[in-house]
Amino acid sequence: MSGQQGRHRVVIIGGGFGGLFAAKFLRRAPVDVVLLDRMNHHLFQPLLYQCATGILSEGAIAPPLRQVLRKHENVSVELANVTDIDLERRRVIAERVMGSPVEFDYDSLIVATGAASSYFGRDEYSRFAPGLKTIDDALEVRARIFGAFEMAELEEDPEARRAWLTFAVIGAGPTGVEVAGQIIELAHRSLKGNFRRIDPASARVLLFDAGDAILAGFGNKLSTVAERSMKRLGVDVRTGSRVTEITYRDITVEGSSGPETIPCHVKVWAAGVRASPLAAMLAEASGAGTDRAGRIEVLPDCSLPGHPEVFAVGDMMALDKLPGVAEVAMQSGIHAAETIKRRVTGGGDSKPFKYRDLGSMASIARFSAIVDFKGIRMSGFIAWLMWVFVHLAFLTGFKNRFIALSKWLTAFIGESRDERTGSALQASARVIVAAAGVKPGEQDMTRLAEREHRP
Amino acid sequence: MSGQQGRHRVVIIGGGFGGLFAAKFLRRAPVDVVLLDRMNHHLFQPLLYQCATGILSEGAIAPPLRQVLRKHENVSVELANVTDIDLERRRVIAERVMGSPVEFDYDSLIVATGAASSYFGRDEYSRFAPGLKTIDDALEVRARIFGAFEMAELEEDPEARRAWLTFAVIGAGPTGVEVAGQIIELAHRSLKGNFRRIDPASARVLLFDAGDAILAGFGNKLSTVAERSMKRLGVDVRTGSRVTEITYRDITVEGSSGPETIPCHVKVWAAGVRASPLAAMLAEASGAGTDRAGRIEVLPDCSLPGHPEVFAVGDMMALDKLPGVAEVAMQSGIHAAETIKRRVTGGGDSKPFKYRDLGSMASIARFSAIVDFKGIRMSGFIAWLMWVFVHLAFLTGFKNRFIALSKWLTAFIGESRDERTGSALQASARVIVAAAGVKPGEQDMTRLAEREHRP
Repeated sequence: MSGQQGRHRVVIIGGGFGGLFAAKFLRRAPVDVVLLDRMNHHLFQPLLYQCATGILSEGAIAPPLRQVLRKHENVSVELANVTDIDLERRRVIAERVMGSPVEFDYDSLIVATGAASSYFGRDEYSRFAPGLKTIDDALEVRARIFGAFEMAELEEDPEARRAWLTFAVIGAGPTGVEVAGQIIELAHRSLKGNFRRIDPASARVLLFDAGDAILAGFGNKLSTVAERSMKRLGVDVRTGSRVTEITYRDITVEGSSGPETIPCHVKVWAAGVRASPLAAMLAEASGAGTDRAGRIEVLPDCSLPGHPEVFAVGDMMALDKLPGVAEVAMQSGIHAAETIKRRVTGGGDSKPFKYRDLGSMASIARFSAIVDFKGIRMSGFIAWLMWVFVHLAFLTGFKNRFIALSKWLTAFIGESRDERTGSALQASARVIVAAAGVKPGEQDMTRLAEREHRP
Repeated sequence: MSGQQGRHRVVIIGGGFGGLFAAKFLRRAPVDVVLLDRMNHHLFQPLLYQCATGILSEGAIAPPLRQVLRKHENVSVELANVTDIDLERRRVIAERVMGSPVEFDYDSLIVATGAASSYFGRDEYSRFAPGLKTIDDALEVRARIFGAFEMAELEEDPEARRAWLTFAVIGAGPTGVEVAGQIIELAHRSLKGNFRRIDPASARVLLFDAGDAILAGFGNKLSTVAERSMKRLGVDVRTGSRVTEITYRDITVEGSSGPETIPCHVKVWAAGVRASPLAAMLAEASGAGTDRAGRIEVLPDCSLPGHPEVFAVGDMMALDKLPGVAEVAMQSGIHAAETIKRRVTGGGDSKPFKYRDLGSMASIARFSAIVDFKGIRMSGFIAWLMWVFVHLAFLTGFKNRFIALSKWLTAFIGESRDERTGSALQASARVIVAAAGVKPGEQDMTRLAEREHRP
């Protein structure tokens, strides 16, 4: 498919923070933009854990890209799965949902396909311990968490019940800490009075990290504050614990006191990410290197060696050891878009990307967060208010902000969570599926696992 | 599982309007209540069409039963699928989610398992034209509706595009009328500016009914008003049209002008319901009759012949030709619970169930509804305000009311719908699935259909 004659054509791959903000920036540039994504929605990943723990609905954090960009008349959103990029012919090769091939010619290209959960070579863990990168992940984790309490209520055997009420979170970065905090909060507060045979507050939440500290990126002081908060909430923080095995029924960790196997059905993986495969593909085609996480080593202006018209931004790019956070993705996406606009409008060529660190933050519990803002480190209630403010500011759409705020009020000041309901699949079949630790559709595996599960 | 010694034990099967309101009524009665359901949520069925058309999230209309009943300490909610009822031994036989058998002894039993979509013997239609009875149905219909616009945008062939932009609703009762109205509204308003190649407003919505009028139950005058409103909105109302065939790619109807086959991918079935199989089972065991819709003919107090301790209420009961609406289910559920309480507290025996008709209503479009209140028939804006008031009053939970109201404000006064996002499954794979008209999991069927679909 080729664009309008004469206009500079920008193809953007990926509708996450990098791609969406690039597309938005180009609104008033004399260019035609095609935004390609496999999904038809943007995803506000920093709040995905709230969708997984029953606070926010899918719609609140995943607005349709078309809707967000409806007034950007020079942007066309295309559902397609990119299979190849021909750097020489400046062409993106993709597949439509129905499998038919389609091609997009470009003058400039921004690749912003992010990163996925990485299991460090143990991909079989993904079925037992889903990550938190997509809406599907969040709904899967939601179904497993709420399903586990249902299963515990039905279980007569105390040990089996204990296994359902034990939750393991692997990886103590922001996502891991936030998920662990929310599971313990919902067990202690939201589910209060809901069950007759179990006490949801007896649930154990284990937070594992191979490193010495949780939220290590925030520095010693905040890390210590966060760990203390987590422990006060009731989270069993196990730093220095390396996960050596995960099955559908348990998790094995190797800590200072030797190996330990803990029976536990619900596991959430927040331990590592790996750049989208397009990073390696672009690296090979352009001669750029990749780092350990598979991210492509771009030039200082985020472009590819020998291909000033191609940019890789966000979580898939390796540059100045920048962290894989939303803010870097937004700013690098905008930087690439700015460069393109400057070239097209004759304003000169590219400049190096300078990341303005607006700080990082993690919410630990209700009314409590930690914030690192240009070396000023804060924790507690004021930090939490900053967290609320920043997340509302960046959440796309006025109504989503309004809804999110009202959900937070009811979940944090009140105690209820409105989005506990999954589909019937989640409420019944997925509970079994969670038990067996396999994904829906793998029916034979489920039956197999069930046989194994019921001696 | 048997209850506390000495206390009268009430088992309620089904957590819909009938079962939930019976359980709530028994709060202060000296009885132990077990509420059995296959799902862990209640469902506000009258608003299910709004979940299907992107206005409300699942959580807003399907609160967990345990949460609704958390303060009802004499009620225990049990996830189980009832397989048999032994009237002589007063025992309910069920299966747990994992397949293990479980039994519940009762002193009194209320069966309130409702009705499901009925395809009049053509069950194969269910995959091509899902009904609207469960959360799964709503998410399926939502994915198909929004997916169809995505597919139309991708389609190059004008005829194929037309098939994606043609929506058929079968059955012009309240659900059918409300769905058809919402599809046309979202096509004309909510999706405005979202697409670049198609004009969503060019979508056709066909509303078929075999009878002479839409909303026939509301009487001639309101029916005429409603039909005029539907037509003004742009809905193609086809009364006197009998559906004779449905495939994944088209629908064939037989009207006054002979048979017609219309290419059309998205079909929604709102034509008929059939009582839960437990109605026939109870009828056979007790010698009661069933009506054409499979509903059990109960005694005037909603009990079974020869079994004054067993009640069938709501959509599964045939009594006085009462309609299958939420209000009848609530009142008959409460009536059964009242009878049980009266007997247990020595207040006398049962009385015949008298339905207090609080009127019926259907929302036709934004700001427009029809209301039939004790023979006073109204339509238009005031009727719509009454619709809003009544639905808010009956929606379970203050926060759900608040969220619903704010979503209505944004969807009806504004034009956006927040809950368009499905899971990835919905956004991509389900689009294909919708194309082929098969349910997820039936992979071979999908491939088969795809081959057939792409010549």
